Amino acid sequence: MVSFESDYIAGAHPEILKALTATNLEPAPGYGSDRFCESAKEKIKKAVGLPEAEVEFLAGGTQTNACIISTMLKDYEAVVSAKTGHISAHEASAVEYTGHEVLTIPGYNGKMKAEDLKAFVRDYYADEAHEHMPFPGMVYISHPTEYGTLYTKKELEEISKVCKEYDMSLFLDGARLGYGLLNKNTDVTIGDIAKLTDVFYIGGTKVGALCGEAVVFTKNNKPKHFLTSVKKRGALLAKGRLIGVQFDTLFTDDLYFKISAHAIEMADKLVKILKDNDIRFFMDSPTNQQFVVFENSRLEKLRETIAVSFWEKFDENHTVVRLATSWSTTDEDLAALKEALK
Amino acid sequence: MVSFESDYIAGAHPEILKALTATNLEPAPGYGSDRFCESAKEKIKKAVGLPEAEVEFLAGGTQTNACIISTMLKDYEAVVSAKTGHISAHEASAVEYTGHEVLTIPGYNGKMKAEDLKAFVRDYYADEAHEHMPFPGMVYISHPTEYGTLYTKKELEEISKVCKEYDMSLFLDGARLGYGLLNKNTDVTIGDIAKLTDVFYIGGTKVGALCGEAVVFTKNNKPKHFLTSVKKRGALLAKGRLIGVQFDTLFTDDLYFKISAHAIEMADKLVKILKDNDIRFFMDSPTNQQFVVFENSRLEKLRETIAVSFWEKFDENHTVVRLATSWSTTDEDLAALKEALK
Amino acid sequence: MVSFESDYIAGAHPEILKALTATNLEPAPGYGSDRFCESAKEKIKKAVGLPEAEVEFLAGGTQTNACIISTMLKDYEAVVSAKTGHISAHEASAVEYTGHEVLTIPGYNGKMKAEDLKAFVRDYYADEAHEHMPFPGMVYISHPTEYGTLYTKKELEEISKVCKEYDMSLFLDGARLGYGLLNKNTDVTIGDIAKLTDVFYIGGTKVGALCGEAVVFTKNNKPKHFLTSVKKRGALLAKGRLIGVQFDTLFTDDLYFKISAHAIEMADKLVKILKDNDIRFFMDSPTNQQFVVFENSRLEKLRETIAVSFWEKFDENHTVVRLATSWSTTDEDLAALKEALK
Amino acid sequence: MVSFESDYIAGAHPEILKALTATNLEPAPGYGSDRFCESAKEKIKKAVGLPEAEVEFLAGGTQTNACIISTMLKDYEAVVSAKTGHISAHEASAVEYTGHEVLTIPGYNGKMKAEDLKAFVRDYYADEAHEHMPFPGMVYISHPTEYGTLYTKKELEEISKVCKEYDMSLFLDGARLGYGLLNKNTDVTIGDIAKLTDVFYIGGTKVGALCGEAVVFTKNNKPKHFLTSVKKRGALLAKGRLIGVQFDTLFTDDLYFKISAHAIEMADKLVKILKDNDIRFFMDSPTNQQFVVFENSRLEKLRETIAVSFWEKFDENHTVVRLATSWSTTDEDLAALKEALK
Repeated sequence: MVSFESDYIAGAHPEILKALTATNLEPAPGYGSDRFCESAKEKIKKAVGLPEAEVEFLAGGTQTNACIISTMLKDYEAVVSAKTGHISAHEASAVEYTGHEVLTIPGYNGKMKAEDLKAFVRDYYADEAHEHMPFPGMVYISHPTEYGTLYTKKELEEISKVCKEYDMSLFLDGARLGYGLLNKNTDVTIGDIAKLTDVFYIGGTKVGALCGEAVVFTKNNKPKHFLTSVKKRGALLAKGRLIGVQFDTLFTDDLYFKISAHAIEMADKLVKILKDNDIRFFMDSPTNQQFVVFENSRLEKLRETIAVSFWEKFDENHTVVRLATSWSTTDEDLAALKEALK
Repeated sequence: MVSFESDYIAGAHPEILKALTATNLEPAPGYGSDRFCESAKEKIKKAVGLPEAEVEFLAGGTQTNACIISTMLKDYEAVVSAKTGHISAHEASAVEYTGHEVLTIPGYNGKMKAEDLKAFVRDYYADEAHEHMPFPGMVYISHPTEYGTLYTKKELEEISKVCKEYDMSLFLDGARLGYGLLNKNTDVTIGDIAKLTDVFYIGGTKVGALCGEAVVFTKNNKPKHFLTSVKKRGALLAKGRLIGVQFDTLFTDDLYFKISAHAIEMADKLVKILKDNDIRFFMDSPTNQQFVVFENSRLEKLRETIAVSFWEKFDENHTVVRLATSWSTTDEDLAALKEALK
Repeated sequence: MVSFESDYIAGAHPEILKALTATNLEPAPGYGSDRFCESAKEKIKKAVGLPEAEVEFLAGGTQTNACIISTMLKDYEAVVSAKTGHISAHEASAVEYTGHEVLTIPGYNGKMKAEDLKAFVRDYYADEAHEHMPFPGMVYISHPTEYGTLYTKKELEEISKVCKEYDMSLFLDGARLGYGLLNKNTDVTIGDIAKLTDVFYIGGTKVGALCGEAVVFTKNNKPKHFLTSVKKRGALLAKGRLIGVQFDTLFTDDLYFKISAHAIEMADKLVKILKDNDIRFFMDSPTNQQFVVFENSRLEKLRETIAVSFWEKFDENHTVVRLATSWSTTDEDLAALKEALK
Repeated sequence: MVSFESDYIAGAHPEILKALTATNLEPAPGYGSDRFCESAKEKIKKAVGLPEAEVEFLAGGTQTNACIISTMLKDYEAVVSAKTGHISAHEASAVEYTGHEVLTIPGYNGKMKAEDLKAFVRDYYADEAHEHMPFPGMVYISHPTEYGTLYTKKELEEISKVCKEYDMSLFLDGARLGYGLLNKNTDVTIGDIAKLTDVFYIGGTKVGALCGEAVVFTKNNKPKHFLTSVKKRGALLAKGRLIGVQFDTLFTDDLYFKISAHAIEMADKLVKILKDNDIRFFMDSPTNQQFVVFENSRLEKLRETIAVSFWEKFDENHTVVRLATSWSTTDEDLAALKEALK
């Protein structure tokens, strides 16, 4: 079985396994105070162009979202997200579990619009009884979004401007950040993101690591005693080195970006194969995730040899599925898909 | 620098790295639904002698404690622990963060006594206003304890009996379970634990894994929709295989027990070296952690070449430190310690 | 200043003050175990036609919603509400503070449609990854709604049917229940509500009491040790008699219904005055709250003598306001309004 | 039946009922923004001698403790209390429900010692791994304590000093504050409390009100948007006037202090009657609560006509009970007790 089910179907990029093996017996203190984490943090600060940034590691995306949102919001605040945002739709109430609400505004193929955000906040403050509602204290966006779409630099600037105007921090979920940065048509650099957001994370789990996300606090705004808050949430690994070694490897010789570029290249080939086979696209996705509509019996046949991901029912006879590429996608995988679609 | 600081100073047992490498490119579905997790669960059920047990994997000890306690307690219940229990003293309020209280009774070198437990619960129900207090709904013990001590089978049976009598579940934290089971004088087997507790976990992080704990629900009592509750707590790894492969390896050819035996053997040698050098023991610890009292200046000198863990201040001139062995401790490490103590 | 700002602008119905005074010096045990609470519960069970119902008292609406929802939902569940539901929009994240999410579906003048509810739940279970989302475990409706509108008996039956089909409990927020039951055109009786819901509450605060809501568990489904859970949420009054005496009075000689009928009669007169003065209605509201659109300068003038409640901005020159009647509204109040509108 | 069961066995002081009746029909805005609350706040600020204090009203003691502690602590902090403190022992995990831990130190007849507090905090910061434990961020004391005992001014000063030294706020639970202030031998004034604490509350429920506690923030330190946080916890009453009118009455013509003085006078007479009848005192309590040891059969007989409160089992044949006086205790009540003890 060849799988395009997701970008986390395989283990880690071979360089990462090599580094884990090479450093395995070196004794190191626990809880992220080891030299691997230290080195990885320095490399990330350099890569994002912010020497004064603060970098912290967590194990997974939902955990990261919940930790960041709940430690940065004040008691009386909530986070604003597009209705389709991962925290709103697919994280089993992890944010609500921390006692904070997710306030939703419309999503357009996964993206929010600055004007909707502004209208939402303006209406909030216009309401004479707004103290009976949670204050909008943070804005959550994902880039790429849950639909693989990307913000333009101008769009990010506009959202950032609204955030500043209404004293909300801007948090960018970069679970698949690499795949967004390596898109050929994007005008958004990692430096832009570091400048325009208050906090963002560089996803490892979906970009070649076994697990791990690197959170970047860009404005000297890391919550005080963050380690204690992370432990309180059950999110502190004893062997912090596990994530340190991985990110140290990913940010050595641009591996993170090379991995991402490979996935994008594979995605371009994937799109071509799908188009050549007259598969209908559910939407236009410029990154490593592609959403297409299959006639149900054709899908059933495909799934005999190719694993893809159910997305949603389209109609009685059609289904939307997701195909994803990643660092581990090979030309052989694509050939198998081509064969299966014949 | 040679380190006896903890049992999580190194990466993973080499067999684990080998298995991660061997399985790395095999595509697998996410969130623990892969064949590695499946296989590991089967092996663990066999090892504990409970074919009908339910096994789930989590990433770390504090996370596991918080997940188990908060999903198994009812809203109006609290967990009872020895005052020195890890959940009471060293987990940054992770249980309280889930909205539940830790009720404490005395600890004796880390262990609770069945009679104290019984007296506590009896007094609770004798109080006419006990509905104004949280109900004791679960008992938490660690084995080995935080001081490396072990319960006897008789002691476990007595605690278990009190739990049954007062309708409390018994939860055993086995973060270092292997080191307890392989002690030469213990009469407690893993099968005894499976029979006497309602839920326990087999620690991986401190017994050779990069991360990971295997939770065993022994009485067909896994909380319904546990996966959703785990995700809600930010504790669900996308690449569940990371833990599956590790436990599959640990429970192949008794690796888990061999690792543990090695650490115990090294601990015996460690004790001898310490005694030969007239180091005073803070307490009697039968497993892989040893607690000793150092004169401060001697400690300072030792720390030039040997890393050990601060435990507590003894008096103005003395300090209690912990030295731990593990799967990765070598005879060379012990020789270095011996040399440093001269 | 005459006020139509809300239905909680005055203290308590005079009969309640009389009863509080009459019983004041009689010693009674605390926390709701007094004879007044006992008597009130019996009267309420009789009034709702459910001898086997369980009745509990709480102090306010938001508190009641949070207590009921969080004690009845399982850890992995969320509550479904119309987008405009009070718990979704105006309770400062009180439900989220308990760790549960509010899932929203469309509202139509405050009401949800059974077909939307069914579609929502069906889609939920159709999603292959639905375990990554909270399970819909309860449905929340308000009657009257936040816009003063009412469900028909048929609509309640349809919603109730969907709840049964998908194993969700149905919770009806009756903060203003009396005003709904006494509407002349409603076909919904309190007995219907008792039959069709799993739990509902009879609002006191907005129907003549100083504070207090009476929760009715209709299906022998009161959460175990509810008193402990209530205390845990800081919601247990030491002098439980305060609410007991009030509800005992409200359910003696149909006072609750007489109060409600008076408010509805006053609302009818209010509507006539507003219409006679060509005030534009924002929507059709059959109960004691009326929503109308004022030209801004006219509103400003009105507010010199009459207090009304801001609802929302209509456009640059117009504002939606709410006028409410209650047990305390008098013909003099209406005359003052009429005069002010001239 | 005559009751000495508690100080909340009756309704409200008659002056309060009079005031509620007199103001009943005056329309007022909701949620504590009425003129009664305003007036009460001014009078309280004057009474405590702090014109710049901020005063807020809540409905009950446990609710107040949970609201204050959870809004003033930072995410990584916990509150320190004597083991016997009300928040530690008798509030059904209400503090833990907000996600914060209660750290306990020894209690001596209900009081903590500054030296124990200092030792506790010093040890905390001395631990090299203290970031794995919650930070002590607030100290909770009750005055009078749960055993009716009182701190001296010097003791409060010492505790306050330790709090300042270690950057912890000092919170005084004054559920029965009046009874402490009116003790004849105390050297602690309400002004001392206002100066030495960061926040305290003046209990209403147990000193003549139907419900209500007045929180005083003494250092311009009221949590931002406190109203929203209070609503989020389900603790905001729609008719805030209910508490406003009561405290306005209690702080008019020193009613609060007169009520308290009466209870203390009655307590002195109560002690004499108990001593005259050779009842053994469990401990020395200088305020309105007395703890005595009864032989069981004598207690059973007493309870035929006199209600008292079970405190704890003393031994097989004896029981500790509490007798409390309050504003509502009369000489007739005392005569009945005397008779019953014959």
